[in-house]
Amino acid sequence: MKWLTVLVIAFAIVASVVAALLYAAGGSAAQSASDLKIPTGYRSWFHVNTLVIDKASPLFEALGGMHNIYINSTGQEALKKGGTYPDGSIFLDDLHEVTASDGSYAEGARKAITIMIKDNKQTSTGGWVWQAWAGGDQSKPLVTDAVKQCFECHQPQKDHDYVYSTYIP
Amino acid sequence: MKWLTVLVIAFAIVASVVAALLYAAGGSAAQSASDLKIPTGYRSWFHVNTLVIDKASPLFEALGGMHNIYINSTGQEALKKGGTYPDGSIFLDDLHEVTASDGSYAEGARKAITIMIKDNKQTSTGGWVWQAWAGGDQSKPLVTDAVKQCFECHQPQKDHDYVYSTYIP
Repeated sequence: MKWLTVLVIAFAIVASVVAALLYAAGGSAAQSASDLKIPTGYRSWFHVNTLVIDKASPLFEALGGMHNIYINSTGQEALKKGGTYPDGSIFLDDLHEVTASDGSYAEGARKAITIMIKDNKQTSTGGWVWQAWAGGDQSKPLVTDAVKQCFECHQPQKDHDYVYSTYIP
Repeated sequence: MKWLTVLVIAFAIVASVVAALLYAAGGSAAQSASDLKIPTGYRSWFHVNTLVIDKASPLFEALGGMHNIYINSTGQEALKKGGTYPDGSIFLDDLHEVTASDGSYAEGARKAITIMIKDNKQTSTGGWVWQAWAGGDQSKPLVTDAVKQCFECHQPQKDHDYVYSTYIP
C-alpha cells in the first residue's frame, strides 16, 4: 500500500529521535533545545492517526511501538485541507511500547514524545522546529542535529510543507 | 499480558456492534435508538487508547481493525481516577479497517462508530446507553438488543462501573 509506505516514512521521521534547535543552528543567541517544553493537554488535541510498528517491521529497531499522532488546533485546518501550516502548528508523536498478544496490539509504557513546531523563521529546516524527549521526560531531550536527524528525511515532502501525515477521515 | 486481555475484552465489548435503547427496553415512550446522534468533534476528545485487532486474533471476525477510543470531557476525570462515571460521560470507539504491511499497521476506511453514554436512569443496563453505526453512518444504527449485545458482556466489570477501558498515562 503506497499510502501506508508514506505513513510509515512519515512516522519514521516524526518519531525519529530528532530535534531542531534551529535558533542555535542559525547562530542566533535565541532559544535552545532545552528551552522547548513538552506540550500539555495533547491527548485532547485532534488525533491525526495511529501507527503500530511491530517486531516484523524493518523499522522496529529504530521506531518500534505504537505512535499516537496529534495536531494542535492551530494546525488542524491545514491538515484537513492541505497546503502550508501556519506558525505555531504542532504535530506530536506520543510513542509507546506496543504489546502484541494473539493478534492484538495495545499500548505499553511510553518510549518517547516527539514534536515538530511550525516556525517560518527557521528557513534552514523548512520552517519547522523538532524536539524529542526520551520516555516523555522533559529532562531527557534527544536533540543533536536537527538537519541530519529530521530535515533531511522530510525534504522529499517539500510540496506538502515537509509533512508526511495525511488526514484520515 | 493480563491487562492486554482485559483491554481486548474491553474493546470487544465497546466495539461490539451493540446498542442500548434503554428507554424503549424499559417500556418508556421516550428516546429510541434512532434518536441518538453520532457525537461531533470526538477526534479532539481525550484519546483513551488504541487497540489493533489483526487477522491473527480470534476476535478478528467480530472486531478486527483499529479501535481508536475517546472519552468526552465529562468522563475524563473518572477515567483517570477510577470510580463512577457522571451522567453524560461518553466513550466512543472509532473503528477502522487496519492495513498491515511489513509489520506496520495503520488505519484504513471506517468500519463503525460505537458509543456508550452514562445515564443513571438506565438501571436495567447498569446506567449506560449503547449505540453503534455501521461505517459511522448516522442512517445505519446497529441496535437490536442492548442487554444481550452490550450489557451482558459488561457485567463482569460491575466494580468498575461496567467499563473495561483503563487510563494509560
